Amino acid sequence: MQNNVAVRNIERADAGLVKELGEHGVATVHEAQGRTGLLHPYMRPIYAGARIGGSAITVLLHPGDNWMLHVAVELAKPGDVMVVAVSAPNSDGMFGDLLATSFRARGVLGLVIDAGVRDVKDLTEMKFPVWSRAVSAKGTVKATVGSVNSPIVCAGMLVNPGDTIVADDDGVVVVPRRNAKTVLDASRKRVANEEEKRAKLAAGELGLDIYKMREPLAKAGLVYYDTLGDFEKR
Amino acid sequence: MQNNVAVRNIERADAGLVKELGEHGVATVHEAQGRTGLLHPYMRPIYAGARIGGSAITVLLHPGDNWMLHVAVELAKPGDVMVVAVSAPNSDGMFGDLLATSFRARGVLGLVIDAGVRDVKDLTEMKFPVWSRAVSAKGTVKATVGSVNSPIVCAGMLVNPGDTIVADDDGVVVVPRRNAKTVLDASRKRVANEEEKRAKLAAGELGLDIYKMREPLAKAGLVYYDTLGDFEKR
Amino acid sequence: MQNNVAVRNIERADAGLVKELGEHGVATVHEAQGRTGLLHPYMRPIYAGARIGGSAITVLLHPGDNWMLHVAVELAKPGDVMVVAVSAPNSDGMFGDLLATSFRARGVLGLVIDAGVRDVKDLTEMKFPVWSRAVSAKGTVKATVGSVNSPIVCAGMLVNPGDTIVADDDGVVVVPRRNAKTVLDASRKRVANEEEKRAKLAAGELGLDIYKMREPLAKAGLVYYDTLGDFEKR
Amino acid sequence: MQNNVAVRNIERADAGLVKELGEHGVATVHEAQGRTGLLHPYMRPIYAGARIGGSAITVLLHPGDNWMLHVAVELAKPGDVMVVAVSAPNSDGMFGDLLATSFRARGVLGLVIDAGVRDVKDLTEMKFPVWSRAVSAKGTVKATVGSVNSPIVCAGMLVNPGDTIVADDDGVVVVPRRNAKTVLDASRKRVANEEEKRAKLAAGELGLDIYKMREPLAKAGLVYYDTLGDFEKR
Amino acid sequence: MQNNVAVRNIERADAGLVKELGEHGVATVHEAQGRTGLLHPYMRPIYAGARIGGSAITVLLHPGDNWMLHVAVELAKPGDVMVVAVSAPNSDGMFGDLLATSFRARGVLGLVIDAGVRDVKDLTEMKFPVWSRAVSAKGTVKATVGSVNSPIVCAGMLVNPGDTIVADDDGVVVVPRRNAKTVLDASRKRVANEEEKRAKLAAGELGLDIYKMREPLAKAGLVYYDTLGDFEKR
Amino acid sequence: MQNNVAVRNIERADAGLVKELGEHGVATVHEAQGRTGLLHPYMRPIYAGARIGGSAITVLLHPGDNWMLHVAVELAKPGDVMVVAVSAPNSDGMFGDLLATSFRARGVLGLVIDAGVRDVKDLTEMKFPVWSRAVSAKGTVKATVGSVNSPIVCAGMLVNPGDTIVADDDGVVVVPRRNAKTVLDASRKRVANEEEKRAKLAAGELGLDIYKMREPLAKAGLVYYDTLGDFEKR
Repeated sequence: MQNNVAVRNIERADAGLVKELGEHGVATVHEAQGRTGLLHPYMRPIYAGARIGGSAITVLLHPGDNWMLHVAVELAKPGDVMVVAVSAPNSDGMFGDLLATSFRARGVLGLVIDAGVRDVKDLTEMKFPVWSRAVSAKGTVKATVGSVNSPIVCAGMLVNPGDTIVADDDGVVVVPRRNAKTVLDASRKRVANEEEKRAKLAAGELGLDIYKMREPLAKAGLVYYDTLGDFEKR
Repeated sequence: MQNNVAVRNIERADAGLVKELGEHGVATVHEAQGRTGLLHPYMRPIYAGARIGGSAITVLLHPGDNWMLHVAVELAKPGDVMVVAVSAPNSDGMFGDLLATSFRARGVLGLVIDAGVRDVKDLTEMKFPVWSRAVSAKGTVKATVGSVNSPIVCAGMLVNPGDTIVADDDGVVVVPRRNAKTVLDASRKRVANEEEKRAKLAAGELGLDIYKMREPLAKAGLVYYDTLGDFEKR
Repeated sequence: MQNNVAVRNIERADAGLVKELGEHGVATVHEAQGRTGLLHPYMRPIYAGARIGGSAITVLLHPGDNWMLHVAVELAKPGDVMVVAVSAPNSDGMFGDLLATSFRARGVLGLVIDAGVRDVKDLTEMKFPVWSRAVSAKGTVKATVGSVNSPIVCAGMLVNPGDTIVADDDGVVVVPRRNAKTVLDASRKRVANEEEKRAKLAAGELGLDIYKMREPLAKAGLVYYDTLGDFEKR
Repeated sequence: MQNNVAVRNIERADAGLVKELGEHGVATVHEAQGRTGLLHPYMRPIYAGARIGGSAITVLLHPGDNWMLHVAVELAKPGDVMVVAVSAPNSDGMFGDLLATSFRARGVLGLVIDAGVRDVKDLTEMKFPVWSRAVSAKGTVKATVGSVNSPIVCAGMLVNPGDTIVADDDGVVVVPRRNAKTVLDASRKRVANEEEKRAKLAAGELGLDIYKMREPLAKAGLVYYDTLGDFEKR
Repeated sequence: MQNNVAVRNIERADAGLVKELGEHGVATVHEAQGRTGLLHPYMRPIYAGARIGGSAITVLLHPGDNWMLHVAVELAKPGDVMVVAVSAPNSDGMFGDLLATSFRARGVLGLVIDAGVRDVKDLTEMKFPVWSRAVSAKGTVKATVGSVNSPIVCAGMLVNPGDTIVADDDGVVVVPRRNAKTVLDASRKRVANEEEKRAKLAAGELGLDIYKMREPLAKAGLVYYDTLGDFEKR
Repeated sequence: MQNNVAVRNIERADAGLVKELGEHGVATVHEAQGRTGLLHPYMRPIYAGARIGGSAITVLLHPGDNWMLHVAVELAKPGDVMVVAVSAPNSDGMFGDLLATSFRARGVLGLVIDAGVRDVKDLTEMKFPVWSRAVSAKGTVKATVGSVNSPIVCAGMLVNPGDTIVADDDGVVVVPRRNAKTVLDASRKRVANEEEKRAKLAAGELGLDIYKMREPLAKAGLVYYDTLGDFEKR
């Protein structure tokens, strides 16, 4: 992960694709992408119910120092999501309501940060969504230079600038920029397919029958017993 | 913990007892049962405010595989609660809104799972309560057979099929099936007893006096000082 | 940390100062105090939105034993906050709705406890705020004597009786009693200063310009590139 | 898990079987048993190199209280292993060199404890092996009664009195008493089978060929590329 | 915890008392002190077998910055132990073989640090003992001033400059300076008392008889059964 | 992270450079590289004292499945180090003595794995070094295809095939392939520089004087007091 670099222009996926990926949500997109791209589940939203899709501005910070967030906001465009890695494990509160005001003024949709945040009461009232590993009032200095828009590893996942970020109550998933169309197509199919299944399941049909699982289960060795006693006597 | 077994019929405690135990809540039932039966406190509800009491359908899964949940739902009856153990530590999202739709159609009241869940926004809107160790969008395969309705260890506690499960914002407690009546009787006494105490405490009476603690505290060695300075000079 | 001691009278900071510190919130007060006094970020509120400022009644408990809370409540005055340390790591539910009823009747504003709490559904309905390291239904005995109003270490921070406690969604901060006025003055300045900045940032001005960061960033080594390709070719 | 009970006589597996299972080690026995019975990997030996096989004396303690270990030692026979659960998460040092002296005098081979131990320097010099979740000097009282030789859940696994315990640097595995012979037979086959494989692998043969994996890998979708560039151009 | 302060002269307990306390070891001293003063058990030695007793030079560092260790070493005297707190959770490697060379040249006996260390292979070869929460190669800067010889909270425990520190494989315990003599007297008694018990236990006598526990156990409710079956039929 | 791909040929840094980087050790190389490239400190060696430098064969596995290790060993050359990521958090024992025998026969120097290992007693006797996040006897299946020699994220750090890996008791650091020469040069300077310092420090000179820190410390605000009393009276 590179220090001392800020890149002004990045390529993003088509805005319409990004928006629709966001609407599909993390679980669907993650499945549509072959179960890849999920950040570590310790990344949690500061309030329930937010769901966003945007293009990643990537930021590398150092423990206890949030200086580069000010550099990053100038390079962001409406519809972007800030994705922040830190060079060592850190829970300091690197982001609060002032920066959120600045981010919002520039059209940034939300923040994904592998560190802490603070002013969560204000952020919740502003409905500025944040996914973080911690909440902490511990403030930071502005002394060490990191990077903006170079590739980073955030919560265990590689994020390149311009990748599509989808985040909701289930976590955060990254879609590499060039895959946005393919993954969206797969997501749409998945959603369509699920509607039909949902109706059947709501009517009391069983997955065992819908997915024709009875035979594979028997082949895989499942044996039914009428009672636990029957099993113990086998 | 047994693999390859599904047991069709289990005994449950009386439905009325189970329902009332649920209404008493986890803290009361846990106390009434002599402070036993509590699952590990890492088991947290996905949304605040739910409270259920039901009979356990026990499920053993393997990491990354939720196949047996489809077997389990067929064997559940209205008023049951799914209790799920995994054969190794795992945070994958093994349950989502489709399975919740199926569970609800069959009358299952909720899910207790020592792994992850996803679609928590949908589950919250459906008001389908889940207690889990993680939230994760990571999906699962259907490839390996576990068991349904054999004894399991879930979040550190032995659960037998048909045991009574009580779950709310304080966590999850298991009442062995045969003890339901005894524990309910003790819970009722506890609740009655607490009403009276609550009124006294609300009126400003002190626990020191209500429980006659002053003498035992002195015997146990507690010494009062007027000021910290008095203590330091002693 | 001392056992067997209860101190009746403690000095507190001026009630007006304490109240206003509470209104400023944890992040502001922590900054105003030179980034000191914050309890470990594992201390989390049981529900969102509470914010309190009060004087500390300090309590030392032992694992699995909450006896001294009954001693403490008699020594508290309206506007106090209970701050509870335990002599070894413990997640038991040491506090519930009955004690909260008693605390409220005596004017105690809230609880900060380096252990577990229970009855969180009731506490939330009562709007009795608690910051804790865990939620657990596990009850406690009343058998071992600890202390009230001697100095304690709670969640990694030294707390003296009568210190000012500020707690909100960002965590918990301790202001030593004698510093209340100085820290409040610094907080007020900070708040005033932030209002002006917030307006500028909301209007789209950049922190880079408001704080005059462009030159220091260049001096510290930050280099801008137009594209990632330009950087890689450097 | 039961309180207030001590059971004097338990059935054990045949001593010869137990001893030989111990010699095979945890990884082999765990595989031979169909990958079941392993305690949570947070259970670590206090020193490297020990390997034991014995019959379980099961003990249930309460946090901060080791009283029942004194009851347990009287009920142990030469060749037994103490297996200790605690009724809530606890890291106190419940066992030290004095108890080890007593255990050894009675022929107990080692200790498996889901809590802390102390005097590890002495225990290491005595070569008395312990598997625990923590090392802590924190001592315990003798005030609350638990149980000896009732079923317990230790580090996530059900242990019945008389079950066979195998422990070494890889962790701890439980073999249900009645399965000792079957599991030993499977272990022996596994060991014999491994010898042959080890020789081939040491000679430079590949698992790909020994296990005939090339075709299944291709079927499962694996594609070889000569260089990373070839793959990226695909 | 104070910044910007270095105190040149501190009072220490008598060197003979400190040395003998060290020889008694952590478990004994912790018991002799009424089970107080133990640092959190996450503090582990970097190699097995060291045991030290010394007087605390207290140091407060900031995350990622070890500058004050250079200030501290000048203020240390032969027989001192460095005790280091950090102002926020941090695992950086703040100490390595160069500083150890400097510490040893000045007679410092060892290091207790609530952060990381590195060069552990060299430190082990030098036999310079360290107790830390982590091992990490991550280096630190020298940019921010903390303090030397003001009171600190290290791993959850208050340490005043000049307090006696005892550390071995069981962890780290702090004895307040003025208590050294009293605690040593209690330690001596404990050691003498243990010798006699050890001999009895080694000869096969039971703690049940030595400590006359049979009657109290029965009073506390313990019931013996001949077999598990007898208990289940009760 | 890519599935279904195995790349046969990768570029490596010059073998002499890689070997010498290994001899310099993790702390030196990490510093020489500007404090970048360190894997998370939860990666620990299974035994103390090993130190290796080699070229990375990168492997992506799935939880509970070690199939690709057999693919990887065929693609390794003498002097390589296996670096293994898993697609979700997992502690299963994915590597043991049989695979180590195969790895050694092919000249592989060691293993870095963000999961568990087993047979650690045998691996220690073989002196086959492993850095892992866990030790676990839990075995794995061979059912799902991952990748060999595509870029991976291991323990929070991006690793490309052919990168230089240095690992010892302090952890694991990655040097991007093209940087090997530059980083080695910086390492050599650092080592030379340290020898001189070590001699001075061993002779009792202080870092304060060697590094001329007294003036910067005073400028940064450090104030000396003769006694703690003097400070408190200030």
